Amino acid sequence: MKILISAVGDTDPIRNFHDGPLLHIVRVYRPEKIVLVHSERSLTKHDKLVKALKSIKDYSPEIIQDGGVLPDAQVSIFDKMYDTVSSIVKKYISDDEIILNISSATPQIISAMFAVNRISDFNVTAVQVVTPQHKSNEGLRHDNQEDIDTLIETNLDNQSDYENRTLEDTGMKFSQDLTKRNLKALIDNYDYQGALELLKKQKSFSNIKELRKKLTEISDTIKIQGMPDKIVKAKLSTQAKSALNSYLNIDRNHKQGNIAEVLIRVKSLVEFILENYLNNHFLDVITYKEDGKPFLNASKYPEILKKFQEDAKMRGQEYHSGYLSLPAYIGILKFFEPNHDLLKHIYKIQEINQVRNQVAHSLQAFDRKNLKKVSSAVFASKQILLASFDIDNHWFSFYEDLNQEIKKLL
Amino acid sequence: MKILISAVGDTDPIRNFHDGPLLHIVRVYRPEKIVLVHSERSLTKHDKLVKALKSIKDYSPEIIQDGGVLPDAQVSIFDKMYDTVSSIVKKYISDDEIILNISSATPQIISAMFAVNRISDFNVTAVQVVTPQHKSNEGLRHDNQEDIDTLIETNLDNQSDYENRTLEDTGMKFSQDLTKRNLKALIDNYDYQGALELLKKQKSFSNIKELRKKLTEISDTIKIQGMPDKIVKAKLSTQAKSALNSYLNIDRNHKQGNIAEVLIRVKSLVEFILENYLNNHFLDVITYKEDGKPFLNASKYPEILKKFQEDAKMRGQEYHSGYLSLPAYIGILKFFEPNHDLLKHIYKIQEINQVRNQVAHSLQAFDRKNLKKVSSAVFASKQILLASFDIDNHWFSFYEDLNQEIKKLL
Repeated sequence: MKILISAVGDTDPIRNFHDGPLLHIVRVYRPEKIVLVHSERSLTKHDKLVKALKSIKDYSPEIIQDGGVLPDAQVSIFDKMYDTVSSIVKKYISDDEIILNISSATPQIISAMFAVNRISDFNVTAVQVVTPQHKSNEGLRHDNQEDIDTLIETNLDNQSDYENRTLEDTGMKFSQDLTKRNLKALIDNYDYQGALELLKKQKSFSNIKELRKKLTEISDTIKIQGMPDKIVKAKLSTQAKSALNSYLNIDRNHKQGNIAEVLIRVKSLVEFILENYLNNHFLDVITYKEDGKPFLNASKYPEILKKFQEDAKMRGQEYHSGYLSLPAYIGILKFFEPNHDLLKHIYKIQEINQVRNQVAHSLQAFDRKNLKKVSSAVFASKQILLASFDIDNHWFSFYEDLNQEIKKLL
Repeated sequence: MKILISAVGDTDPIRNFHDGPLLHIVRVYRPEKIVLVHSERSLTKHDKLVKALKSIKDYSPEIIQDGGVLPDAQVSIFDKMYDTVSSIVKKYISDDEIILNISSATPQIISAMFAVNRISDFNVTAVQVVTPQHKSNEGLRHDNQEDIDTLIETNLDNQSDYENRTLEDTGMKFSQDLTKRNLKALIDNYDYQGALELLKKQKSFSNIKELRKKLTEISDTIKIQGMPDKIVKAKLSTQAKSALNSYLNIDRNHKQGNIAEVLIRVKSLVEFILENYLNNHFLDVITYKEDGKPFLNASKYPEILKKFQEDAKMRGQEYHSGYLSLPAYIGILKFFEPNHDLLKHIYKIQEINQVRNQVAHSLQAFDRKNLKKVSSAVFASKQILLASFDIDNHWFSFYEDLNQEIKKLL
């Protein structure tokens, strides 16, 4: 069913020998049902209005009134009208074909009709009516006191070849600004893929090409654990770039609440830094197998092997000479420098290793109390990074800066 | 600096012995600078307007005109006015104190002034002016043809004890609907934490308690790899619930583009299902050490151990009897049932194992071409899940259903 929802203004139903907006929309669209939203003031002419609406030839709509009666003292208050109009419109949004009159009544009611349609994503037909003069009505008197039969009879629009003065509003620019707000919210939450998907649904959009390029680049890079171009080009060593990129990912995932990723990556990052440190300070302590995996160079450092075997024995276990990972790296570092400054930070990473393995290898939930330890581990990983590489502070706002850069295009 | 941005309507500057909205706002707020947005029609009275504005005692603002001249034929077209007004307002938004006149000119201009302020999150002061009669101006003639000096002299508001008829609009309901849109966008992208953070910034909001509860529950659960309450209560075996919950997380992360999480979890899920299958079909083939880790029961199944040792030898490696993981589970399954239906799906998981390990243990990016394999693995994991447990189809829209449920509260 075609339903028109309309407030009633001073120009309705007829003014200066022409349809007011309401009557005109009805004439053009012939809705089966008309829902009138009256103010105290417009209610007094309800019967005249109905008479005028029913005067249209071969047409007898159902006319109802809804939303109570708007107090005259409120029809000029934006927030009140927005609230009232939106609750009325929301009631009728369904499978029916809805039309909104966005030309009758106060600017605040008109604005509410227009805005709720777009903001609530109803996007139903919103119809304006241009004045017969195609300009302001200023100086033209209202005909609210005239006899309605005379007005109907002398209405120049009341004939078959009337000029159609309706104009459907697409709300394009308005809707685009609404979409921009959503894009900003997604970008603020580092959801570049979500922003990209939303952008793909847009037809025309300012800077759309550059926006798509930037969003595609960063979301593709993140997906493959890659390195953003700006970091690739940074004046840093290859090792520093890898570590920085990894830390920035950890920090971002931590903010997003992706704890599993944080747990997995924070261990990898610290392993990477320790491996790098040991290689630089203790020649050949690490040896690499054909597949690139790091092992303890036990033939050169038998005393470390011995220590590892003793430690395992003390735990009632047998020592397996597997490839090096966090516990072994820590063992080697402690062997050489038992009082190394970084150890206290490294222990923070070790503390979450069990949770990390639980997340990596089982489907079991972990204890909520570990979340604090995760935060401490992220903080510790930054300290380890800073102590190991000379990385300028500005790099740590990489994703915030990127977000600003993308949002500037909006 | 205090800057007023204002269009000019037929009621400006003076009508019926009272300030029009523009003059009245200026009288109350005394901005240092006034930016006028003229239409062709209002431009003709620019000099009168300036004279009226400057007639305010002890006050001499800078008055400029901006935004070109709006064609009379366009001042009633929403989209045009929204576009024009928003670009003018955006120009002045800065550290200055901006005031918008949301009472002068056409409903479309007024609506644009009002809406751009909220949609673009400027949220500067938007001022309405109530009519002196506190109701419609209908029937009152405009005074645009009168001598301006006479109008100024006879203006009843032009005295020290005038009635302040300004009304600042907070746009509360309007802004709430805007926030709802952002919340929806975040929820549609499963960003429950982002939605929760946004909600926390809101003062009053319908259903805020229930919304917060639901968003907190799900985001907390996801963080610790936990199980949503609805799944906990499902009429399914404990094993089926764990597997289902894991798959739903994989599916959600896949949609979000969190490939690292998908890679980690898809292997764990299939390991879990295989372990379960082997335990149910081949008694004691798996034995558990004290720490709960699964190992091959080599004393009961020496022929499997022998097979593993031979296979390792063929690869030129030595066999390590570590705890069971995907390759070993596959080996055991193939030993018993070399033509098992699920093997073709399981191989899809095996195919991404190397990428999975790269993500879990190194900082290196993986090759983009693996993304397709990840999608295949997610699909395969669903097939393995469905073949292993009797899970009703409706469960697979768990997060979509949850999103609908949350959005219904908005």
